[in-house]
Amino acid sequence: MHPIDDSPITRDGNSLILAYDHGTEHGPVDFEPMPKSADPTHVFEVARHDAVTAIALQKGIAEYYRTWEADHGIDDGAPLLVKVNGNSNLPVREDYYSPTQCSVGYAVEELDADAIGYTMYAGSRHEDRMWTEFREIQEAARAYGVPVVMWSYPRGQGIQANDAYSGQSDPAVVAYGARLGLELGADVVKCKYPGTRDGWQQLEDAVGGLKTVMSGGSKRSDEAFLEDVYTTISAGGNGLAVGRNIFQRQDPEPLLDDLERVIFEGTDPREV
Amino acid sequence: MHPIDDSPITRDGNSLILAYDHGTEHGPVDFEPMPKSADPTHVFEVARHDAVTAIALQKGIAEYYRTWEADHGIDDGAPLLVKVNGNSNLPVREDYYSPTQCSVGYAVEELDADAIGYTMYAGSRHEDRMWTEFREIQEAARAYGVPVVMWSYPRGQGIQANDAYSGQSDPAVVAYGARLGLELGADVVKCKYPGTRDGWQQLEDAVGGLKTVMSGGSKRSDEAFLEDVYTTISAGGNGLAVGRNIFQRQDPEPLLDDLERVIFEGTDPREV
Amino acid sequence: MHPIDDSPITRDGNSLILAYDHGTEHGPVDFEPMPKSADPTHVFEVARHDAVTAIALQKGIAEYYRTWEADHGIDDGAPLLVKVNGNSNLPVREDYYSPTQCSVGYAVEELDADAIGYTMYAGSRHEDRMWTEFREIQEAARAYGVPVVMWSYPRGQGIQANDAYSGQSDPAVVAYGARLGLELGADVVKCKYPGTRDGWQQLEDAVGGLKTVMSGGSKRSDEAFLEDVYTTISAGGNGLAVGRNIFQRQDPEPLLDDLERVIFEGTDPREV
Amino acid sequence: MHPIDDSPITRDGNSLILAYDHGTEHGPVDFEPMPKSADPTHVFEVARHDAVTAIALQKGIAEYYRTWEADHGIDDGAPLLVKVNGNSNLPVREDYYSPTQCSVGYAVEELDADAIGYTMYAGSRHEDRMWTEFREIQEAARAYGVPVVMWSYPRGQGIQANDAYSGQSDPAVVAYGARLGLELGADVVKCKYPGTRDGWQQLEDAVGGLKTVMSGGSKRSDEAFLEDVYTTISAGGNGLAVGRNIFQRQDPEPLLDDLERVIFEGTDPREV
Amino acid sequence: MHPIDDSPITRDGNSLILAYDHGTEHGPVDFEPMPKSADPTHVFEVARHDAVTAIALQKGIAEYYRTWEADHGIDDGAPLLVKVNGNSNLPVREDYYSPTQCSVGYAVEELDADAIGYTMYAGSRHEDRMWTEFREIQEAARAYGVPVVMWSYPRGQGIQANDAYSGQSDPAVVAYGARLGLELGADVVKCKYPGTRDGWQQLEDAVGGLKTVMSGGSKRSDEAFLEDVYTTISAGGNGLAVGRNIFQRQDPEPLLDDLERVIFEGTDPREV
Repeated sequence: MHPIDDSPITRDGNSLILAYDHGTEHGPVDFEPMPKSADPTHVFEVARHDAVTAIALQKGIAEYYRTWEADHGIDDGAPLLVKVNGNSNLPVREDYYSPTQCSVGYAVEELDADAIGYTMYAGSRHEDRMWTEFREIQEAARAYGVPVVMWSYPRGQGIQANDAYSGQSDPAVVAYGARLGLELGADVVKCKYPGTRDGWQQLEDAVGGLKTVMSGGSKRSDEAFLEDVYTTISAGGNGLAVGRNIFQRQDPEPLLDDLERVIFEGTDPREV
Repeated sequence: MHPIDDSPITRDGNSLILAYDHGTEHGPVDFEPMPKSADPTHVFEVARHDAVTAIALQKGIAEYYRTWEADHGIDDGAPLLVKVNGNSNLPVREDYYSPTQCSVGYAVEELDADAIGYTMYAGSRHEDRMWTEFREIQEAARAYGVPVVMWSYPRGQGIQANDAYSGQSDPAVVAYGARLGLELGADVVKCKYPGTRDGWQQLEDAVGGLKTVMSGGSKRSDEAFLEDVYTTISAGGNGLAVGRNIFQRQDPEPLLDDLERVIFEGTDPREV
Repeated sequence: MHPIDDSPITRDGNSLILAYDHGTEHGPVDFEPMPKSADPTHVFEVARHDAVTAIALQKGIAEYYRTWEADHGIDDGAPLLVKVNGNSNLPVREDYYSPTQCSVGYAVEELDADAIGYTMYAGSRHEDRMWTEFREIQEAARAYGVPVVMWSYPRGQGIQANDAYSGQSDPAVVAYGARLGLELGADVVKCKYPGTRDGWQQLEDAVGGLKTVMSGGSKRSDEAFLEDVYTTISAGGNGLAVGRNIFQRQDPEPLLDDLERVIFEGTDPREV
Repeated sequence: MHPIDDSPITRDGNSLILAYDHGTEHGPVDFEPMPKSADPTHVFEVARHDAVTAIALQKGIAEYYRTWEADHGIDDGAPLLVKVNGNSNLPVREDYYSPTQCSVGYAVEELDADAIGYTMYAGSRHEDRMWTEFREIQEAARAYGVPVVMWSYPRGQGIQANDAYSGQSDPAVVAYGARLGLELGADVVKCKYPGTRDGWQQLEDAVGGLKTVMSGGSKRSDEAFLEDVYTTISAGGNGLAVGRNIFQRQDPEPLLDDLERVIFEGTDPREV
Repeated sequence: MHPIDDSPITRDGNSLILAYDHGTEHGPVDFEPMPKSADPTHVFEVARHDAVTAIALQKGIAEYYRTWEADHGIDDGAPLLVKVNGNSNLPVREDYYSPTQCSVGYAVEELDADAIGYTMYAGSRHEDRMWTEFREIQEAARAYGVPVVMWSYPRGQGIQANDAYSGQSDPAVVAYGARLGLELGADVVKCKYPGTRDGWQQLEDAVGGLKTVMSGGSKRSDEAFLEDVYTTISAGGNGLAVGRNIFQRQDPEPLLDDLERVIFEGTDPREV
């Protein structure tokens, strides 16, 4: 890991990443609760909220983002995190895998990316292949001087077959995934929330100071969601990466206001 | 996606692409209804119709096209879209796949291609591999400044095995395929007609303004065909890519005249 | 395809290619009917006959050919076609495949090849892989300005499993293979003789003027052989590629004399 | 092999390598006996002991190490050995394999590595693939002039299926693995302790003077551990690579003091 | 093939290659009959015998060889043939394969190799892959101007499954393997002795003058061994590649003396 406190994707050491990749990962069905969210420009506007330190996009949407900024003379849009791998949920796969659909060179040189994102499925039969792909991506990002965020999601046959683990949310699994972010050279690791403060603490104990952000997951109540974010922050976490929980609501601004207070000011949401 | 309204493959924002690749995809049997269509020069002549904004060819035919233009002093032929992948229907495949038979460098530098075409089979066991191949092709096309048309055809074991989908023409499947065109960085997406206006509308709702063209499919009556094209256009689509419906008829000119009015003037074919 | 009438491998638009690759493809057993044919220098001498427009060799024999020419001060030897893929019949394969054993760069720069040859097994489970290998070979040959001859032999599981086809010699199969030569950018396509004049005509109808040569196949009577060649030529074919039918005989000169008249003068062999 | 006695990773011809890669190989569970060991900076401090001639780290920790040195103005830290492959124990694998997660170029140019480490699993179904990966790594290291340490661990289906071998610790297996280090061009080979002095002698007899270090293995009593190290040294070995046996204890300094005497002075631990 | 009579690995057109790669291929067990042979420097000394025209080594031993020469001021050591592929007998393999463990560039530029060696297993399921690897190696060697020796050993499932062949020593199998050396561009082919003079003659008849050397095989009586070598030479062969038959004996010098007379003077060993 490298120090990234001077990167635009952090603010006072923490991050709020808006991830708009469910059109790739799950398809248009994810836009149904809020049809406007199918329109990237709607999302680009939402991401202008001060709380947002990065918007995470797949290549094609990232191209659109830069064009939209130029067309509208916007120079204070959210920093751009290009997610360089991803997958659709359409095919049958032997085990979890996410192909690289954007080169780091294109992301940085043509899209002026402020950061690179990569999903790692440790525990999958394709884990080893993803390590070598991550190697190239991480080293290219180093050469360009942009930070790397690892979506570290251990899952697949190896996790299922291991009686020592209860599943993807097992704190030991989440912590191992986070540790791999440190060992393999990520600058931020994005992890599934393991369900409890102890679980997140276990993760923090494993990463030697690496920046960590909680994965937003599927939509739930504001209270439950903010509580989890607060727990993460107070256990040493560095923020949140969230998509559907923001984009699937009519007016995300109040929630972004709350998240800003929780993530960057450490405010307990019950006191907001 | 990039803005392409100043590209020769569009006219007033829409496109009519003549696709002459059935000799590759289905073999000479497709020429039987109109034997002259086996001769590329016959097709090159047909493509000179004003309505045509691009002729889509495989590498060898594209070489022939440029030679024919030079030999006949033709400088107003249809813009050239080189289809850089394709397949024959001869082998047994585990699942859908289309190998890359032309490099973007060769297409642009040697064949002076105005656009690049690539078929993506999301839902196939080979989808992930095609993503990485598309990555290289799309980025090479960006480097040369030529637009990319994605033939986005979700199909294969993943679609068949998914009870949520009725098949390749399910509007949700077609719309997901179209969205992938946007997410992965295509400039135009070519989709199977999902059967109804609502279906095409669902697709348009998913692509955030990306250009869309309807796939012509197999030959049917002029009325039915023009009606589908009109529905596509009036639902926000940007045109048509058609092959057999044109080349398998004795005199395609009247149909091309009609298509010109429907695609570029938005005329209802029942009023032609 | 590119125009190749000014290439040394054609004469008045037609070609007679001597293919000396059975040592690779079948092994020394093919030399038994004429032991002297195991000696490449014997074959090099035979190829000096005026009728021969190219000698097709694998890399090692091609090296020998150039050394032999230099050692003997020969400057009127047959033009050299380097066959850049090939295979032995020793292993068990899942389906037909022919690995690339010579790069185009080596063939042209070091061996001064006048043409490149490549075998394509459409219909095999390895067809798609061969397309991508052919892509690189064809484009490299274009960069060097040497023509490409495709040995287009549809075969394998896809052909066997398809009830619409009677086998490798089915005229529809042969014609599809020939069409692929055109679509993929070959300059000459070498096809199995489909058994009848109608069959060859069907092939010619499918290739839009691409040069075609008949594959000589295994040794048979002079009359039957010349008749097939004549049928090919009179149906629009451009010549012959032959190996065992020449090299397995004691004195190939009379047959080469006959072939010269049939191929380049269009003489009916029954009138010779 | 190359002479490496002037390399910083040796001292008087021998080496004590602290390997801190169990966070990758086994996950955070390995830090439980000594929670502080999860913190890389704790380990970096331990490695400053005079006895240590190299600290072996995965890429991300190595980045951290260089940052830590710079931040604290440390210029007498342990020489850095970057382990360029590694694996997690999360997935199900067909057989043993360890993907390359760091390039030699990055290790040397960006991390200023003093040596490169690579794990070879001879006997695995992936052995052949690892040979070719090692080829590239070893030759890149040669180009940079840094020595290569091979973790040579024969294991997997080939060893299990062979009745001639009792398992991974069979002296014949260990010796064959060590010999492969010599044959393939390593400068130091790290081997499992085969259990007896005779076993290590058998290994030494096989390597023609190549430097050898004993693998520390899992934690056991100081006496037993030091005895094995002494046996290794007195049988001709060149030191030790150890991780958990050091990091899983509260105060590793006394043991490091003892190891220093055994490894560099050849002192019998029973006489310490 | 290229003329190599002016290469240091031949003497009067013939060769005696000492192959010291059994440490790789079979492991230390092969040193047991003569423990000193585990020490490469012992072998380097043996190879200084005048009869030896090349010593064949794997990369790591070749590095050692050059260091040893430099350290001892030896400038009349045997010419160095670097064997660029090889394998251990530890893993379970689907079929015969030998990975490339040294690049030609490293062998020539860094190790100053006089020749390159490569093992080809025609008949294996991996044959085709080895052809493409050999292509790159052969062409790289040509670029450097060093000759290529092919260890041509047809074996594996294809040979076993073929009723026409009695096994690896079947003269037809050996001859086909030798012919492939010629066709693929080797300069010397090393073949298994097919058991009889007729067998070797059959091989010679198949290779059009390519240099051939007999493979020494496992250790047997001097008389039997010399007789086979003499038969080979008198049937047109060009020498011998031998390892265990030399290194597994206490004093190899008398046998080397005899081999010198047989190989370079054509002396019948019964008359020595």
